[in-house]
Amino acid sequence: MKINSMKDLLINELRDLYGAEKQILKALPKMIKAATNAQLRSGFEKHLKETENQVTRLEQAFEKLGVSAKKKTCEGIKGIAEECEELISADPEAEILDAGLIEAAQKVEHYEMAGYGSVRTWARQLNLREVADLLQQTLEEEKATDKKLTELAESMVNQMAAAHT
Amino acid sequence: MKINSMKDLLINELRDLYGAEKQILKALPKMIKAATNAQLRSGFEKHLKETENQVTRLEQAFEKLGVSAKKKTCEGIKGIAEECEELISADPEAEILDAGLIEAAQKVEHYEMAGYGSVRTWARQLNLREVADLLQQTLEEEKATDKKLTELAESMVNQMAAAHT
Repeated sequence: MKINSMKDLLINELRDLYGAEKQILKALPKMIKAATNAQLRSGFEKHLKETENQVTRLEQAFEKLGVSAKKKTCEGIKGIAEECEELISADPEAEILDAGLIEAAQKVEHYEMAGYGSVRTWARQLNLREVADLLQQTLEEEKATDKKLTELAESMVNQMAAAHT
Repeated sequence: MKINSMKDLLINELRDLYGAEKQILKALPKMIKAATNAQLRSGFEKHLKETENQVTRLEQAFEKLGVSAKKKTCEGIKGIAEECEELISADPEAEILDAGLIEAAQKVEHYEMAGYGSVRTWARQLNLREVADLLQQTLEEEKATDKKLTELAESMVNQMAAAHT
């Protein structure tokens, strides 16, 4: 893709995030299956539904921009997902696995926070208010999910896992 | 690597972050060369020096843990760096490139914020206070760098880039 304008940069990054969300839709069921802590599992299940909405919002953004909803492979999320699968394959004790799953999920959320923060800012600068609003909604969801994961990590999973050392 | 305890999980992730920092040491000079905005370039130069200190802190953490300072290829940072190189190769106008470089740098910072946040929490849970303190110092630097990048993006680079659309 040629990047000749800020709008091109925005579309290019939206395609990266669209790829990212689709990759997350594939990764989350494996994380749900692997998670043993009930709160963590239900958190992942809730985030799976949120991710479906986030995909829809990106499709709405593409429509408003008058371009097709194409996705790019998101190399950042691909790397994070690979490392998460590696952890699951190492088959550690349940609570250790849960701690590692939370970390992987937080890396995903942080990738998205950086990505959605930038595209939201670019859309605002381009006076694309409706697009910016859609992206802001998703950004807020990602931040809320990250905060919940931090609370869960601090309150429960890690304490249990430390008992096994 | 076998992951049989929280300490193993901590060491495994420290090796990922050690790989990440080394990969960032290779990527930053390319980003400095590509950046045109003087504030952005000097910000990257400052972060290069910080990254060298962060590598040293990880080496101190490995020493305190009594393990060798081995690195793993960090797949997440590898993906982000690849996308950044792709952007540089697309050779967009200077201000658009700067906006994209800021986004790539924020993805890197966010990856590290998630990673260092987790290992700091695990080290605390394991009562490894000195290790936790080292990781907390780096976490604070990464957060400060991300904040500066957001301010720069909002105040300067994006406004200029939008003028080109």
